[in-house]
Amino acid sequence: MKVAGFKAAAVAAGLRYKGRPDLGLIMAEEPVTAAGVFTQNIVQAAPVLWSKEKAASGRAIAILVNSGQANACTGDAGLAAVAESALAVAQAIKAHPDQILVASTGVIGQPINLTALKDAVPSLVAHLSEDGLEQVAAAMMTTDTKRKISRASTQIGDRTITVVGMAKGSGMIAPNMATMLAFVLTDAAAASQYLLDVLRQSAEMTFNRVTVDGDTSTNDCVLAMASAKAGNPLITSEADPGAADFAKAFQQVMADLAKMIAADGEGATKLVRILVQGAKDETQAKAAAMTVANSPLVKTALFGQDANWGRIMAALGRSGAQFDPYQVDILIDEALLVSKGQAAGDEKAAAEIMRKPEFSVNIHLHAGPAGAEALTCDFSYDYVKINADYRS
Amino acid sequence: MKVAGFKAAAVAAGLRYKGRPDLGLIMAEEPVTAAGVFTQNIVQAAPVLWSKEKAASGRAIAILVNSGQANACTGDAGLAAVAESALAVAQAIKAHPDQILVASTGVIGQPINLTALKDAVPSLVAHLSEDGLEQVAAAMMTTDTKRKISRASTQIGDRTITVVGMAKGSGMIAPNMATMLAFVLTDAAAASQYLLDVLRQSAEMTFNRVTVDGDTSTNDCVLAMASAKAGNPLITSEADPGAADFAKAFQQVMADLAKMIAADGEGATKLVRILVQGAKDETQAKAAAMTVANSPLVKTALFGQDANWGRIMAALGRSGAQFDPYQVDILIDEALLVSKGQAAGDEKAAAEIMRKPEFSVNIHLHAGPAGAEALTCDFSYDYVKINADYRS
Repeated sequence: MKVAGFKAAAVAAGLRYKGRPDLGLIMAEEPVTAAGVFTQNIVQAAPVLWSKEKAASGRAIAILVNSGQANACTGDAGLAAVAESALAVAQAIKAHPDQILVASTGVIGQPINLTALKDAVPSLVAHLSEDGLEQVAAAMMTTDTKRKISRASTQIGDRTITVVGMAKGSGMIAPNMATMLAFVLTDAAAASQYLLDVLRQSAEMTFNRVTVDGDTSTNDCVLAMASAKAGNPLITSEADPGAADFAKAFQQVMADLAKMIAADGEGATKLVRILVQGAKDETQAKAAAMTVANSPLVKTALFGQDANWGRIMAALGRSGAQFDPYQVDILIDEALLVSKGQAAGDEKAAAEIMRKPEFSVNIHLHAGPAGAEALTCDFSYDYVKINADYRS
Repeated sequence: MKVAGFKAAAVAAGLRYKGRPDLGLIMAEEPVTAAGVFTQNIVQAAPVLWSKEKAASGRAIAILVNSGQANACTGDAGLAAVAESALAVAQAIKAHPDQILVASTGVIGQPINLTALKDAVPSLVAHLSEDGLEQVAAAMMTTDTKRKISRASTQIGDRTITVVGMAKGSGMIAPNMATMLAFVLTDAAAASQYLLDVLRQSAEMTFNRVTVDGDTSTNDCVLAMASAKAGNPLITSEADPGAADFAKAFQQVMADLAKMIAADGEGATKLVRILVQGAKDETQAKAAAMTVANSPLVKTALFGQDANWGRIMAALGRSGAQFDPYQVDILIDEALLVSKGQAAGDEKAAAEIMRKPEFSVNIHLHAGPAGAEALTCDFSYDYVKINADYRS
């Protein structure tokens, strides 16, 4: 996948993993429009502090990403390491270090191997190519089993604009559990404040629906860059021609990535959509969907392919949503499981659907007009194995 | 264990489990002082609705408890089943059904086997004895691996008063995950409002520290009865002579039970105390302790005996507590692991302590004067196995 105005590369710098790429670079031809959204966790990694400050200018030329060390809880030395990394890249590509965004993922508390990183920069820059985006998507993986990259395009007037996004993240699908990084690149011409608006709105409808608002890790960030190579008239607000189509393509890419993250949840065997309807308001709808989506008892039941709807009812009941338990309906895809808060339909039919790798839990609270969706995965032996063994 | 004024018995009624007691009865000689605290979940089981109403009178003569079916999400039929169960017991012991408290634990949504229950009542009553409390503690078990019963005594003037408590609960230690039931019996003479006050305060400092406030299942309840057989002057307020000693014994029994519940968490191999100090206020201290205690990534690291303190920092950072990450200290028992938010001490020494079945994670936020404690367990393969297979 390519997007006009960007080159990319990845190399095996040997930061932590042996024999696989662990350092990636995405570079625009010149400084371009940029925006970022960052973790709400009050413990923020050094690269988050750095990139938050730099992205606020609305301009950037490159994104440097490493896997292996999160460079979080590393104090002044961690901040210095980010600055030195950015400087090394800036010198190699003849840019200012303030134009280099940095993202890291890996173990918290371990210092980044700065020598190895800096040694790898010349090779990284030498390998930059228009075909390098997939390599970066691979280099940023930690416990991910698949690289995650998606593309969408649309027309603005007579111009075709393209959006390419990549992401990493698989810790129980929720960014509070493990780092989620995503980079979204487009050749559209978009003003920086508008790009930030679209990024925020898209994140709220996509990545924030595979997690709990504010429940984020030390390193989470989503960075966006827009090269303007498509030649469309600059989009500065949602009222501009083509803005709606651009935002739709942008959100589609992020929705794809969010779905890939949920499907690649650590140890996951199933991708499950929790759809809540009939809530009093959107806040309650989202709380209900996310409480069900995050419940370990629900997630283990999904793994066990057990239509144990009582656990869903119990999760709804503690979610903060207001409803009458004896009005609730629950279906697995189209199979009725609960009607008016009690067992109904054919539980065996529902359990049969749960054998599939992908299905929906459809919940109607009958308490109001609002709805929300969450994506989750099941909770398996392998989740425990991956996380008990992650550092060893 | 005995406590004056109470008899108890359990029988195998065949409600769900075969060949083991699943129905228990605790009976006072006459109606005595009673109090209860109940789940905050808005989905409340039929026995919770029943017992909440009856306990509000401050008097009761008996507690009927079954395992196997939770009698939650069972509608009017569920409520009728509770009333019929209470009536059957009332007739057998010549009491009024309003004096019979009822508690159930098991699968949500399944109707209780009322015929089997009623058939078992005569045998249950015939077996009542002063030595029957352990039998009830066993009958109320579901995925519990051990029965949980504790005793404390103290002097009030020249009278010895005794408190005996029993509990069930093992779903990931948190009552939001699986039912927690507890019954606390004493021979002290205590007024009903005072008994309720002591019960509430003790629950806040014990059971509510192995869970998140309000995050409760459909069936959780803690019931207390006081027979007055010890002959002490009636305690009506905390200012009365002996009140402090009584409250201390009462809370000690509940603390013992809470610890037993945490240690018997489903699949648990370790009991871990999370002690937070230096928080701004008690609310933040408790939020910090409970967020660490509930984090699946922390709990899997405990299982893996991995001193992965970054996960503790990340959990603290999303807990809502306000602090400077670079002021935080973390110790495993006495072994320093984190100083001023960064790696310190000897991680291997900390990991060595984590091999023990019981240890503390001591966290100092250096942000204020408040502290709080939470009890948790590790998160193992067996947790997934137990919960994926529970109904099958």
